[in-house]
Amino acid sequence: MTQTLSVALLQQAIDLDKTKNLNLFLAEIEKAASQGAQLVCLPELHMGPYFPITENFEHYQHAETIPGPTTDALGMLAKKLQIVIVCSIFEKRAPGLYHNTAVVLEKDGSIAGMYRKMHIPDDPGFYEKYYFTPGDLGFNPIQTSIGKLGVLVCWDQWYPEAARIMALKGADILIYPTAIGYHKDSKSGFVKDRDAWQTIQRSHAIANALPVLVINRVGYEKDPNGLLEGTQFWGHSFIAGPQGEIIKQAGDTVETLTAEIDFKETEQIRQFWPFLRDRRIDAYEGILQRYL
Amino acid sequence: MTQTLSVALLQQAIDLDKTKNLNLFLAEIEKAASQGAQLVCLPELHMGPYFPITENFEHYQHAETIPGPTTDALGMLAKKLQIVIVCSIFEKRAPGLYHNTAVVLEKDGSIAGMYRKMHIPDDPGFYEKYYFTPGDLGFNPIQTSIGKLGVLVCWDQWYPEAARIMALKGADILIYPTAIGYHKDSKSGFVKDRDAWQTIQRSHAIANALPVLVINRVGYEKDPNGLLEGTQFWGHSFIAGPQGEIIKQAGDTVETLTAEIDFKETEQIRQFWPFLRDRRIDAYEGILQRYL
Repeated sequence: MTQTLSVALLQQAIDLDKTKNLNLFLAEIEKAASQGAQLVCLPELHMGPYFPITENFEHYQHAETIPGPTTDALGMLAKKLQIVIVCSIFEKRAPGLYHNTAVVLEKDGSIAGMYRKMHIPDDPGFYEKYYFTPGDLGFNPIQTSIGKLGVLVCWDQWYPEAARIMALKGADILIYPTAIGYHKDSKSGFVKDRDAWQTIQRSHAIANALPVLVINRVGYEKDPNGLLEGTQFWGHSFIAGPQGEIIKQAGDTVETLTAEIDFKETEQIRQFWPFLRDRRIDAYEGILQRYL
Repeated sequence: MTQTLSVALLQQAIDLDKTKNLNLFLAEIEKAASQGAQLVCLPELHMGPYFPITENFEHYQHAETIPGPTTDALGMLAKKLQIVIVCSIFEKRAPGLYHNTAVVLEKDGSIAGMYRKMHIPDDPGFYEKYYFTPGDLGFNPIQTSIGKLGVLVCWDQWYPEAARIMALKGADILIYPTAIGYHKDSKSGFVKDRDAWQTIQRSHAIANALPVLVINRVGYEKDPNGLLEGTQFWGHSFIAGPQGEIIKQAGDTVETLTAEIDFKETEQIRQFWPFLRDRRIDAYEGILQRYL
């Protein structure tokens, strides 16, 4: 594990065309690496439009295996550039069995590990329960040459439990590839929602004294059925330090966010704010219940 | 339970003299009630200076039983004013057994319930492990005529687990009496600390769609031993809504914060952001471990 880490978050608008998206990300990763990035993170389901905007079995054709064409292409690039890449795949595990899966590609091009999204949302325009079987790999950070990456995906970001378990398993950093936005027809409340979304992720940094990376997509994507007004992905990718302080934050347009993460800070903060010391593990059983 | 609730938070500087403190709070509670408050909350250990600034067995003389003189006086006032009061007591449970305990006084003057601080800090100037046995009542909201109050105390505020269990047990609101500040000699970093402190408590609102009340003390209190530079309590008591939005926030001087809480919002927000629906209770066992 390195003491400091240069990270780059690719906040992008996604095209309808898969090849175009792949080429865009290959080029942007290359650019980020040339500027010194050791870790490059892509947003959730970056190979195409956010298809869970509607329930349509035709979208299953876009699912791919792991390893598969996307992890092969990104793995080759990771090797060429000697960097680590976090990507997000609509995983075909078996016929009729699909996941929303983040994959970490190591500097040597190999797959360091993967995380299958555990918390699956389902809201109008975000029909993920139709497509994705909830993950069965648990919350396990992925060991890499640059540290243990606590990779979680989007809806997981609302759950302190997920971040805590990653921290207890030794994660050095939390990473959330994301696809979140507002319906064009419900714009009024979205700033409050976006602020809540940022605040709870900053809180995972604070509770666990870990840096947090959040990579969202941007741009408007319409509902192909025309039933909904479509989704405006709100961007605002950000990099937070281990006290939840915002180090860098994007707006709502295409942008690459970069920062230098200092892993030493986690230990310093944990000594100054020793939350892990005082957890009442004898009194937390209620967490394992649905309702009490 | 009422649909809306008028709350008042008494952010106060604390005197060396116990009687003076009691009279101050009796007067301030009366004033708040006359302005419509149905629930009045006092800061942590409000009957005297923050004695855990040093370890000294002479401070045990300030401990009192529950019921005892302070809960009697505040209970009588609660009955007279027909309001609910949340107070904070250095509890003498038995000779040699002491707790940091929040007590809820009902409109009829009775004790609705109490919460013994579960997470006990210990840092230079905050030597609480010397005085307080960790609570053994667990995380249980207290049923009152105005709703189920999820009362937690200060250091508990850093633990998402505590807030979550209160929510799963049906709390309508989270309340944190607090005594937090910075050492006079370490002022530089305190804004980051204070921001982290506010952010993590706002996150408990967000994760659980509950309003949150935080009542801190203000003012400078010196170390009687002269070993430390003393503590500047940073105030900034606040009232947050169920998406973590700040409704009202105090500065760093004496102030009574008031707001009208709308309990209906919790259900609305939980329908719009259905986090409780998707918790992976099958995968949270790690929470019960010290480290994994």
